[in-house]
Amino acid sequence: MQRIDLTLGIDVGGTNTAFGLVSRDGKIVFEKSILTFAELPAEQLFSRLFNDVNKAVKKLNSKYNVIGIGIGAPNANYYKGTVELPPNLNWGTVNILKLIKKFSPLPSAITNDANAAAIGEMLFGAAKGMKNFIVITLGTGLGSGIVVNGELVYGEDGFAGEIGHTIVDPNGRQCGCGRKGCLETYASAPGIRKTVFELISKTNLESELRKKSFENLTAKEIAEAAMKKDKLALEAFDYTAKILGMKLADSIAYTSPEAIILFGGLALAGNLILLPTKKYMEQHLLNIFKGKVKILPSKLSGNSAAILGASALIWNELNKN
Amino acid sequence: MQRIDLTLGIDVGGTNTAFGLVSRDGKIVFEKSILTFAELPAEQLFSRLFNDVNKAVKKLNSKYNVIGIGIGAPNANYYKGTVELPPNLNWGTVNILKLIKKFSPLPSAITNDANAAAIGEMLFGAAKGMKNFIVITLGTGLGSGIVVNGELVYGEDGFAGEIGHTIVDPNGRQCGCGRKGCLETYASAPGIRKTVFELISKTNLESELRKKSFENLTAKEIAEAAMKKDKLALEAFDYTAKILGMKLADSIAYTSPEAIILFGGLALAGNLILLPTKKYMEQHLLNIFKGKVKILPSKLSGNSAAILGASALIWNELNKN
Repeated sequence: MQRIDLTLGIDVGGTNTAFGLVSRDGKIVFEKSILTFAELPAEQLFSRLFNDVNKAVKKLNSKYNVIGIGIGAPNANYYKGTVELPPNLNWGTVNILKLIKKFSPLPSAITNDANAAAIGEMLFGAAKGMKNFIVITLGTGLGSGIVVNGELVYGEDGFAGEIGHTIVDPNGRQCGCGRKGCLETYASAPGIRKTVFELISKTNLESELRKKSFENLTAKEIAEAAMKKDKLALEAFDYTAKILGMKLADSIAYTSPEAIILFGGLALAGNLILLPTKKYMEQHLLNIFKGKVKILPSKLSGNSAAILGASALIWNELNKN
Repeated sequence: MQRIDLTLGIDVGGTNTAFGLVSRDGKIVFEKSILTFAELPAEQLFSRLFNDVNKAVKKLNSKYNVIGIGIGAPNANYYKGTVELPPNLNWGTVNILKLIKKFSPLPSAITNDANAAAIGEMLFGAAKGMKNFIVITLGTGLGSGIVVNGELVYGEDGFAGEIGHTIVDPNGRQCGCGRKGCLETYASAPGIRKTVFELISKTNLESELRKKSFENLTAKEIAEAAMKKDKLALEAFDYTAKILGMKLADSIAYTSPEAIILFGGLALAGNLILLPTKKYMEQHLLNIFKGKVKILPSKLSGNSAAILGASALIWNELNKN
């Protein structure tokens, strides 16, 4: 009997850690989410996680065969196998690939969630068959995974692809990284919330969002208001798209991709963000690149997208051999 | 008798075209420069050029053997073998690799001068042994060649690596590309001349440069004034370095290189530009990259640098086989 190979994809988040078993063609045969408990050491998380995975594997039809482990995690270093001082996890710096050898002898790989998303799009999503593309994840921050000649760009130290920390305005908004004016202070879920409050302070545009405190306002609510033609919310999307489009024009000047794929929470606003971003990107492009580069929404399905990305990371490694 | 292989490196410029025969280890055994005659068709140039090359080869010791041709030219496309609407040459769009088959059956490759410089630094210069680096050419414009995992980044269409056309300020200086505020309007030979005139208009700094008209002022004179501690000239270098350093911090966020190498006319100002650029780059770097990335001067020797770059392009292709 022909056995069907699976890989385990793990997406480590500050609150929840999602994991699943995924086939070579991107079908998820098992998935689960557990609390991360960010205050506890990494080993505690992986001990619980592999307990669940081992139980799940026992229940699976014997035709399945798990052959590798891919992990997406904040501040992960692909080369070293480490997670280094993640902001939302009390892990310090820990070698995750070494650690999980305690639980499984399978080949494994780790990278940050944006890089995992990029490989996920390449194997299972909107970048299938593409050799040159960029994935931008728009969530709590702005992450990016750059693919050149079919290979993820890790750079000399494994930390390449920090487009969220390229500078829009050196005197601009305070960034969590300690600098000012990084792209992610504008183009991210908190970024568009800040833009709403900047517009409340600067304009007299009528808006239901004026009733909201900053802490209670979500990017989803801004999108909902915009869909109801709330002028201030629409203006906030336009401003976000303008800055994002301008910086994506820069990113095209770097690697001349076939497409840029928008992924993550804020990208779920769909055409509210895609269309104006495309417009402003085209406006700011160097002539030779105009009309060549697609902006596409992610094709990795919602809740499981991060699991697919993490699984794709190790499928991609296994495919190299 | 062991024969020594050479390649022909050709650097096409708007005024002069330099070419030479170069060994695998970067020694030039013959070199010459002829007028390009930018108004005449490309074929005319290559006809004269190969006439000279053939004569030179006949005179060479018979132990030499020419095995390939590399060309650096403005608006060259590596994938297509074309030069497309070069601004300083009346060539239109022409397939150069096809054209030179009329003169030589040898394997050939073409790219723009900045990409050729990057491969030149990798094979013969400051990037020897490096896998991830960026070469910035500071001359009439700002060109760049990005190397990732030992491979030049050409992107989907062959035009990647246009860092000179990333945007510093969307309301900034008019660029030759039709847009505003591109990096090359600040960091290039004309860019620093513009900065001198901006500083003359904005400050009362004493300076011998106040005696100069814009058309008569050269970047070399600004460097000479700065070396004599002319305050305005020093301020102009500082301003140039500040903008360049800030944008190089962005470029590190993209590809996390081991080094950035400065090449070309303005880079000949040496520490006048290298030291403040390094300082401002470090100031603007994301924490994880601080203190990791070298800024180095080109190690391709002066007048022959472009020939070495063009020759390196084809050596690199031949080495792949």
